[in-house]
Amino acid sequence: MTKPLILITNDDGYKAAGIRDLARAVSAIGDVIVVAPDGARSGAACAITATIPVHYSGPYEELLQCGEQVYACSGTPVDCVKLALEQIVPRKPSLIISGINHGDNASVSCHYSGTMGAVLEGCMKDIPSIGFSLWLKRGESYEQHPPCADTLAAIATLCQRVIEAGLPADVCLNINLPVADSFRGWRVCRQARGRWSAEWAPAGNPHVRDRYFWLTGQFTDLEPDAADTDFAALRMGYGSIVPITIDMTAHSAIVQIERLK
Amino acid sequence: MTKPLILITNDDGYKAAGIRDLARAVSAIGDVIVVAPDGARSGAACAITATIPVHYSGPYEELLQCGEQVYACSGTPVDCVKLALEQIVPRKPSLIISGINHGDNASVSCHYSGTMGAVLEGCMKDIPSIGFSLWLKRGESYEQHPPCADTLAAIATLCQRVIEAGLPADVCLNINLPVADSFRGWRVCRQARGRWSAEWAPAGNPHVRDRYFWLTGQFTDLEPDAADTDFAALRMGYGSIVPITIDMTAHSAIVQIERLK
Repeated sequence: MTKPLILITNDDGYKAAGIRDLARAVSAIGDVIVVAPDGARSGAACAITATIPVHYSGPYEELLQCGEQVYACSGTPVDCVKLALEQIVPRKPSLIISGINHGDNASVSCHYSGTMGAVLEGCMKDIPSIGFSLWLKRGESYEQHPPCADTLAAIATLCQRVIEAGLPADVCLNINLPVADSFRGWRVCRQARGRWSAEWAPAGNPHVRDRYFWLTGQFTDLEPDAADTDFAALRMGYGSIVPITIDMTAHSAIVQIERLK
Repeated sequence: MTKPLILITNDDGYKAAGIRDLARAVSAIGDVIVVAPDGARSGAACAITATIPVHYSGPYEELLQCGEQVYACSGTPVDCVKLALEQIVPRKPSLIISGINHGDNASVSCHYSGTMGAVLEGCMKDIPSIGFSLWLKRGESYEQHPPCADTLAAIATLCQRVIEAGLPADVCLNINLPVADSFRGWRVCRQARGRWSAEWAPAGNPHVRDRYFWLTGQFTDLEPDAADTDFAALRMGYGSIVPITIDMTAHSAIVQIERLK
């Protein structure tokens, strides 16, 4: 019997530790094809490449772990999904997964995330799609604190269930994982209200005096006492699952906006 | 009395015709500062610049139309908003507007839009924010079919009302405009379900044989008979106003997703 096809991508590049972990985690439940950016695309969101051609290379046999095919793409994570679906995969994937991102994509950070850009694209193509990100604190690296074996097994189980049951129309999943020695469980939750501030650090270009800045920033959870948000789940040591919709309409605001006309 | 400050950006660059029209349209109702990309950033979505410094230049006096200050920024539309708010504007803007984009951002195209990326960023910073895009058919250019004077006046009136009344928390507006000789009115609507397909055209790189592609594509409205979508409004000749939320949670799917655990 043909195994389900699983397409994997990320925004940290095809050689990232997180994508290797994700490919290994799901290799037993499907045929795996990796089509990921040829380098880091952090903060790529749903960006697409409009002004230059996009190309891909591979498969890279030296990156083989469990029989998966690995391709590198010059574009964004969204480009990777679009190109894979039309030009690379031999049949329609049963699942698209993205990550494991080196850093969280909880709360409003989901908007900037290339990891989640790929997931939204998969959802727009009507394929069940899930993003996985690791919640690292400042100074922690993915390589020092990779997801434990328990967590990788829980990812595989969840992917298997999504392949079997599907996801609601126009809905994909944004999953964040705490650093932990064992897997405590999943919590289905909503996106926390949050805000980034203090976002620019002087870049100190020696050739010109000012006006060069590095993007940085501090995140504030605006609902620190809420129990049903993604950050609340993470703080309690659970993996957070936020169902995300590609319908951006604020349906409950339509009546109020009518009054502006 | 101090006039309200209006921050304008776009994804077509600080010299685009659309941003000039938008600045002129609102110059009577506020003090205007333009902080826009130094070149085209079409399809930039909510992307941020994470790996290199971002810088800005200006004000450019030669671009003055009605007293507005114009700055150019090396980053994405989201970077422009973040940088403007922390480093450029003299006080908190009462309104952020983006556009007028040379092409529509209706239905799911909203996800890829740099125009709307800037608007979502403004909303995340708790400032009323609106994106404007012009629905051009294939082969039509903004320069040949700019918004008529009536439409620009309607934009100014709407902006004035949003400055006075504000917008609901976590909600911004995605506005698309039809090409028309007169302004027919606004329709408040929801994002149409839609799909892009046939997205890659061979790029014909003479140095390598294949695997180079231009991103292109055909859009299909999946609800052509619905009366309450943005594309329905545009087809009837109205300006479409879709309230957009920065909360991506699919609240109605939470119970169903619980069953996956």
